[in-house]
Amino acid sequence: MPVGTLGTVKGVTASQLLATGAQMVLSNTYHLHLQPGEEIVSNAGGLHKFMGWEGPMLTDSGGFQVFSLANLNSIDDKGVAFRSPRDGRKIELTPEKAIEIQMALGADVAMAFDQCPPAGSSQSEVEVACERTHKWLERCISTHANKDQALFGIVQGGCYSNLRANSAKIVSSFDLPGIAIGGVSVGEPVEEMHRIIRQVTPLLPEDRPRYLMGVGTLREIAIAVANGIDLFDCVLPTRLGRHGTALVRDERWNLRNAIFRNDHQPLDPSCVCEVCHNHSRSYLHHLIRSEELLGLTLLSLHNITNLIRYTNSISQSIEEGCFSEDFAPWHRSSKAHHTW
Amino acid sequence: MPVGTLGTVKGVTASQLLATGAQMVLSNTYHLHLQPGEEIVSNAGGLHKFMGWEGPMLTDSGGFQVFSLANLNSIDDKGVAFRSPRDGRKIELTPEKAIEIQMALGADVAMAFDQCPPAGSSQSEVEVACERTHKWLERCISTHANKDQALFGIVQGGCYSNLRANSAKIVSSFDLPGIAIGGVSVGEPVEEMHRIIRQVTPLLPEDRPRYLMGVGTLREIAIAVANGIDLFDCVLPTRLGRHGTALVRDERWNLRNAIFRNDHQPLDPSCVCEVCHNHSRSYLHHLIRSEELLGLTLLSLHNITNLIRYTNSISQSIEEGCFSEDFAPWHRSSKAHHTW
Repeated sequence: MPVGTLGTVKGVTASQLLATGAQMVLSNTYHLHLQPGEEIVSNAGGLHKFMGWEGPMLTDSGGFQVFSLANLNSIDDKGVAFRSPRDGRKIELTPEKAIEIQMALGADVAMAFDQCPPAGSSQSEVEVACERTHKWLERCISTHANKDQALFGIVQGGCYSNLRANSAKIVSSFDLPGIAIGGVSVGEPVEEMHRIIRQVTPLLPEDRPRYLMGVGTLREIAIAVANGIDLFDCVLPTRLGRHGTALVRDERWNLRNAIFRNDHQPLDPSCVCEVCHNHSRSYLHHLIRSEELLGLTLLSLHNITNLIRYTNSISQSIEEGCFSEDFAPWHRSSKAHHTW
Repeated sequence: MPVGTLGTVKGVTASQLLATGAQMVLSNTYHLHLQPGEEIVSNAGGLHKFMGWEGPMLTDSGGFQVFSLANLNSIDDKGVAFRSPRDGRKIELTPEKAIEIQMALGADVAMAFDQCPPAGSSQSEVEVACERTHKWLERCISTHANKDQALFGIVQGGCYSNLRANSAKIVSSFDLPGIAIGGVSVGEPVEEMHRIIRQVTPLLPEDRPRYLMGVGTLREIAIAVANGIDLFDCVLPTRLGRHGTALVRDERWNLRNAIFRNDHQPLDPSCVCEVCHNHSRSYLHHLIRSEELLGLTLLSLHNITNLIRYTNSISQSIEEGCFSEDFAPWHRSSKAHHTW
């Protein structure tokens, strides 16, 4: 899922997004609650109509953002209170409120409100967050009353195997239509992330979508899929694009680099996107050097396409029964980048 | 012609631009000379290939920008010298050099290098600029050697009728494939612009395209067409778009305005563009308020479409023999905005 934080994948129109091959989009409850507010989106007929995206859509619960972005005033079993970074007004977010907002937004999938502790939290801190997350999940389920919207639970537990196992067991017990692994890609060492993916994914129901939150690097996607993950989201393709970086197969290229100044090849001759079809590295270099808006849009478009092509190639390998052969070496590799 | 200063209509892809109905694009020689330089564009196979635009294309000569943007060191009959605002290096631009750059850029139409005096210049100042412009035109013609590229001359003369008449006569004498009226929309009162358009346009050859430089407001376009102008360029649709302003029929709407917050109608229900088809005023308001890149792109796209639809409606009126009836009231109107 490309990330459309504020109801827009930054710099990319809905029709351009469709052309990348993206099937599903994530938007952020926290951001949309602050601006424009869920009433506006609901009046528009829901988030699909508001942003002009007819495909599947998921909203996160706001939990992660509250703990990572907001100026927190208090957190207790009831919920959290924080000051809006936009206008300073006090906002309370509870499991009930997070679900009500998401029902108003009307995405196809809503996420349970969870407490996501930062990397480096102690075992007792993570244990408290887990217990709270599990109690909040019950309240989310009680509040959720939208038969056209799926509610996914979130497994927490930080880097502690016993807490992860316990969280996976509890969250799996609720017969939810899908389950996510949260609290990864929050600053922990990458080996820890691998260990969590390998440990937790097999503990989740096989017949429901399993979603690894916030992950979008090639090797980690392959490892996760090998262990049973179905769904990912990541800001990387668009964030890198806005910083002038292109994902070219398994590499990252800084398009500001002078080596591209007079390089008139397509960015990636094997790529099917409009950018690689119509434009050259030299043109992209020129746009980035000139700080032209179009450069950010074109690199975002290409980067999303690149990542979608990658996950599609994984799907195809699975269908053809050669996933292990094609991608297994990577699981054991210490290289972050591997030819695909 | 939408303006693609640096080889990009800001925030708009080539395929999006095509969808607006735009037929021809202008790029700026001054800007492209500074970045990326005409050698790079030439190595790319010319400006069409560089920016991925297959339709007709025109480059201005850089004259206007040198006099309005650059830190001028000297100006004499030979040419001008200035410091690059990018890196401070000294750049000399002569009629010969301006044409050589434009031949390397390879647009379909190149413009003669002219001296464009600012509004408020005295008659003697404008007279000197005119004489220089005419001498430079001869040198441009001598230098220009590209049978696949048309060279247009430029009529100057400021607000002085005698100088305009003389310049129109001299420039018309060169049997060029097209002629432009320059030195309008440079800060003079709008009534002066009307007077210049009405005086000069009929003095130019009827069988060649007549191009009014830098004009793109609805009333002025109608007046100019009524007098025989065929071609316009203007940054207004994209510049307004980047500032959150939408052209809606004959009005300008500030999309930041809170009245649009909960307005779920299309921007212009009569408009055929992707923005009006897929999105609401409320969504555009949200994007602009959130300072999202996409807002600038969508407003630019809509604004270009709006202006192209307007000029297309003029063409249709002419074909149907009802231009005078449809647009004449406007020529005599003091209102800048008139229903079309």
